Amino acid sequence: MQEVIDTAHAVVDECRVHLDTDGLVIRAVDPANVAMVNEQVSADAFEAYDTDCGEIGINLERLDEVVGIADNDDDLVQFDLDPKTRKLDVQVNAVEYTLALIDPAAIRAEPDIPDLDLPAAVSVDEAEFKRAIRAADMVADHITLQVDEREECFIANAEGDTDDVDLELTGDDLEDADWGSAYSLFSLDYLKDLRKPIPTDTVVRMRLGEEFPAKLTFELADGAVDVEFMLAPRIQSD
Amino acid sequence: MQEVIDTAHAVVDECRVHLDTDGLVIRAVDPANVAMVNEQVSADAFEAYDTDCGEIGINLERLDEVVGIADNDDDLVQFDLDPKTRKLDVQVNAVEYTLALIDPAAIRAEPDIPDLDLPAAVSVDEAEFKRAIRAADMVADHITLQVDEREECFIANAEGDTDDVDLELTGDDLEDADWGSAYSLFSLDYLKDLRKPIPTDTVVRMRLGEEFPAKLTFELADGAVDVEFMLAPRIQSD
Amino acid sequence: MQEVIDTAHAVVDECRVHLDTDGLVIRAVDPANVAMVNEQVSADAFEAYDTDCGEIGINLERLDEVVGIADNDDDLVQFDLDPKTRKLDVQVNAVEYTLALIDPAAIRAEPDIPDLDLPAAVSVDEAEFKRAIRAADMVADHITLQVDEREECFIANAEGDTDDVDLELTGDDLEDADWGSAYSLFSLDYLKDLRKPIPTDTVVRMRLGEEFPAKLTFELADGAVDVEFMLAPRIQSD
Repeated sequence: MQEVIDTAHAVVDECRVHLDTDGLVIRAVDPANVAMVNEQVSADAFEAYDTDCGEIGINLERLDEVVGIADNDDDLVQFDLDPKTRKLDVQVNAVEYTLALIDPAAIRAEPDIPDLDLPAAVSVDEAEFKRAIRAADMVADHITLQVDEREECFIANAEGDTDDVDLELTGDDLEDADWGSAYSLFSLDYLKDLRKPIPTDTVVRMRLGEEFPAKLTFELADGAVDVEFMLAPRIQSD
Repeated sequence: MQEVIDTAHAVVDECRVHLDTDGLVIRAVDPANVAMVNEQVSADAFEAYDTDCGEIGINLERLDEVVGIADNDDDLVQFDLDPKTRKLDVQVNAVEYTLALIDPAAIRAEPDIPDLDLPAAVSVDEAEFKRAIRAADMVADHITLQVDEREECFIANAEGDTDDVDLELTGDDLEDADWGSAYSLFSLDYLKDLRKPIPTDTVVRMRLGEEFPAKLTFELADGAVDVEFMLAPRIQSD
Repeated sequence: MQEVIDTAHAVVDECRVHLDTDGLVIRAVDPANVAMVNEQVSADAFEAYDTDCGEIGINLERLDEVVGIADNDDDLVQFDLDPKTRKLDVQVNAVEYTLALIDPAAIRAEPDIPDLDLPAAVSVDEAEFKRAIRAADMVADHITLQVDEREECFIANAEGDTDDVDLELTGDDLEDADWGSAYSLFSLDYLKDLRKPIPTDTVVRMRLGEEFPAKLTFELADGAVDVEFMLAPRIQSD
């Protein structure tokens, strides 16, 4: 559950949560309209799930703290929504925390998920991806993510004043690829935030285009949660 | 030994230690007269114990640091008191630290332990108790500790501006209980300090009354150390 | 590799590295001329080693960060030097970091290693040595390192305003000793820095004299790296 909250929290501090019988959906865009999250949490992600349909507004920072009082992953966390009082009861063992919800109307409207036609896709191991972002952040503010259709390789590249960082993965290094041509520049500040909730030993699928937004998708909780991040490109300055 | 020091240090920075043939006793009250500690360390808590009777004054912060140079719990720490020079030799393996003692007369007089008649007692698992304090601290400055004699339950409750925290334990959840009526308000700042030295997997016994001090007792070192904290209640403001 | 970098970094931020077919050598002295490092890294310390002879200038802080992107000790780190561009390629799995080198001529000249005739030598376990430095640092700014030829013992001693720290090791406690007479005072600030790169479960050999510099030697990487620190004494102030 902490992972689900951290994932949305990588983009916004408050969000609307849609509840229906199959599970819950969080869609949010950051205040600068650069990063977007679309998170689908299946009812299977819960030990037990039973809900009226509806929409609630959540302070993610506060909820993250509350869920954090569970001492370990085995502690069961139970959520009970009281629609009349607009309160969410969070129960961790015998301790019950009553969280005031936010009026969804007071939270920024959810974004429409744009239907982008991105020509290239690569599936990379999160460890290499995170390592490249971490190294790139030592030398620059931006990183280019590139797919070379002819050479069949994925390249991440950051150029600093004196030092450079490169990650180059060919077909053999990738879990999976749809070769197409892509080249876009992204802000490392945003990528550093989006990187955090990606669990270890996960495959991150990236869809990329030419000066187009990137789509990063991965799974949490053994596939019970589908996460999609979208990140707008920066305009090349040179 | 670190636990014994941390326990007294939760209340005061300097204290008097009474030594006699059976063990040592620390009694101290904090400068605001809100929290009191009464710690009885049996000679059994030591590998070897041999002492002249007497009273010494200790800087707990300094002693805590010195004992902290032991790398792990297996490192034997040896204390030798030189009553003439008023120095305490602390030996950790081959390193010997000579700690200047404080004149006991320069340390605040020890409190008389009041003989309170507290009608209710409950024994709770430290994990639930600590979790309730941690969650309560997110929403408020105070917490009420309450025993409902008729319902036979223990209730800890903190009310914040928007969020609330409750811990409710009935007979089945408690190790042990003497049902009586109790309801008092306590400062979370103090409880957060008193909570720290309580070891994991320990049972904390609380004696409570109506707007009366609370007595918290627990054991360290497999029962060789008995700790009693007393905490004065806050006046209900509403 | 991180250990090799940290060792030189304990003395300087930038250094010259001499490369030849047998391995590499780092010799550097700190800006105040108090501490000196002489580090010999055998080619055996590397999985594979192949080099042109030469000298390069390295920013140790930056290189430390770069090598730090390896997630764990099993990640192979590969260095490739391009003498034409004066760049060092550091490859950690698929991520390649291109580090700009520094013109060696711009880095402080390497010190001549003085050929000191130090009469006493003791080999002590790093744990006792580090513990003594840590305890001494609680009470004073300086520590005396002393060898008593007649008593056949090594003594480290720090005297504070109220508290003292002593480490006394006789023949039985020492791995090895050449008895001679030695007594010198050293700055704890420097010793705290030099202590850090010493690995756990290592023996530190100290050569000492009368108001003379100390030589500390130890091994890294199962003997593939020889480290020698030299530390100038402080003048006794009393």
